[in-house]
Amino acid sequence: MTKRIGFLGPSGTFTEEAALLYDGDAQLIPFSSISAVGAAVVTGMVEEGVVAIENSIGGSVTDTLDLLVHGPDLFIKQEIVLPIMHCLLVKPGTQADAIKVIYSHPQALGQCRPFLEQCFPKAQLEASLSTAAAVEEMKKGDGSIASVATQRAAELYGAEILARDIQEVTSNETRFVVLASADHPATGDDRTSLCFSFDDDRPGILVDVLSEFAERNINLAKVESRPSKESLGQYIFLLDIDGHREESPVKEALEKVRTTTVRLKIFGSYPRFRARG
Amino acid sequence: MTKRIGFLGPSGTFTEEAALLYDGDAQLIPFSSISAVGAAVVTGMVEEGVVAIENSIGGSVTDTLDLLVHGPDLFIKQEIVLPIMHCLLVKPGTQADAIKVIYSHPQALGQCRPFLEQCFPKAQLEASLSTAAAVEEMKKGDGSIASVATQRAAELYGAEILARDIQEVTSNETRFVVLASADHPATGDDRTSLCFSFDDDRPGILVDVLSEFAERNINLAKVESRPSKESLGQYIFLLDIDGHREESPVKEALEKVRTTTVRLKIFGSYPRFRARG
Repeated sequence: MTKRIGFLGPSGTFTEEAALLYDGDAQLIPFSSISAVGAAVVTGMVEEGVVAIENSIGGSVTDTLDLLVHGPDLFIKQEIVLPIMHCLLVKPGTQADAIKVIYSHPQALGQCRPFLEQCFPKAQLEASLSTAAAVEEMKKGDGSIASVATQRAAELYGAEILARDIQEVTSNETRFVVLASADHPATGDDRTSLCFSFDDDRPGILVDVLSEFAERNINLAKVESRPSKESLGQYIFLLDIDGHREESPVKEALEKVRTTTVRLKIFGSYPRFRARG
Repeated sequence: MTKRIGFLGPSGTFTEEAALLYDGDAQLIPFSSISAVGAAVVTGMVEEGVVAIENSIGGSVTDTLDLLVHGPDLFIKQEIVLPIMHCLLVKPGTQADAIKVIYSHPQALGQCRPFLEQCFPKAQLEASLSTAAAVEEMKKGDGSIASVATQRAAELYGAEILARDIQEVTSNETRFVVLASADHPATGDDRTSLCFSFDDDRPGILVDVLSEFAERNINLAKVESRPSKESLGQYIFLLDIDGHREESPVKEALEKVRTTTVRLKIFGSYPRFRARG
């Protein structure tokens, strides 16, 4: 049976590109929210789900972190890092000087602001719910509308690419994770993601936890504190560390950390992403 | 002369509410982006600027962190914490059963999703660039359009509030900061915000820095690693600590930290926010 992979739709988004890069043979099924992708995995509607977790410009994708922290038992099985390239799409035949309105998701408009202000200083920027929805808006209108979206959206919707790589920073990368009912066996080059919180807020309590990793020479790839959803000032800490949760020395460090934290939750261990050369 | 305060406009946003709470006598001047507010302060167009820095649901406001990390010399002079209350606004006289389309910023729509799905399962959700822009869209349309926005936007635009407090989590708070050309003198109950990065990624290097604070019994209110804009995997660390940068023991800790980090930048010390009783 063909594997089914859920992703945050509609078709033509960067998440679909990441899912295709991960498994080009799977059946890709779009869902309307990140939490819906999680629910689809938990209930068996799909075997795996692909969601964005972090962008090099925009930071963490909080819906995904919340799904991992507060949601049902989902594990990270794989990570995928994708360079993000925004394109300016138009209806075939539209010239640049005819463009009066440009649609896209507010974040994509923000990432392309210098280009848009330089080349289309008088164009009106309009928000849409996703980059793919922007292309749909554009298709409905006349030839004075452009949209900021992916190269794949241009193919899917029969749009023309007027400009490529229009984002501000050239190294705009997004990290996606594959969610499944179990994580990945050790490969020798792995990463582990987890979260924890504390009952009290004694100074140094976080240092005690991080020291368990540092003393064992375990590299900390990422640390982030997030409000605990109850109130600002109460935090959950999220870590990415190098190594696999079932192998030494990470295994020992996690056993020690479990005794000093409350609500330690291990999101899973998975192979570190290496770009195909 | 009346003090001028810049804020992320248009009028009717939560940022304007925060600026009014901070100084109701000042002249409030809206700007179109967070970086524009920063530029207005640096160039003297306004004396101070108010921008959001963190929401208890959505997490950090990355544009503000980037302005502090990468931008010109701006200091945090004050913090303001505001409970966020979303309202459902309509044109006066519109009944709930007439609503077919609901406009708002994608983040506000997301924060009110359970209410909107429960009460308006068939309504079409449409994105706008801000909650205030959503009210403008609504005003232009017929009586089948609603918008999610602030109570103040209802007053400013002459709209009717059909429902209040429609957000998912009742403790939805946003922390704003006042940017100025200097930070605040010590008051005895202060907080200090800063960032730093490292030249190498030796395990334990972050622990060494955090230990300088822990050993001096300085409480760490927040820690966050952010991609350095060059690439995922290179991080800048942002800390909020209790105490003032010019007073013991924070002053000594910062002197030690300066020797072990690169690019230590102190955003400023300012009084901790206390809600008026």
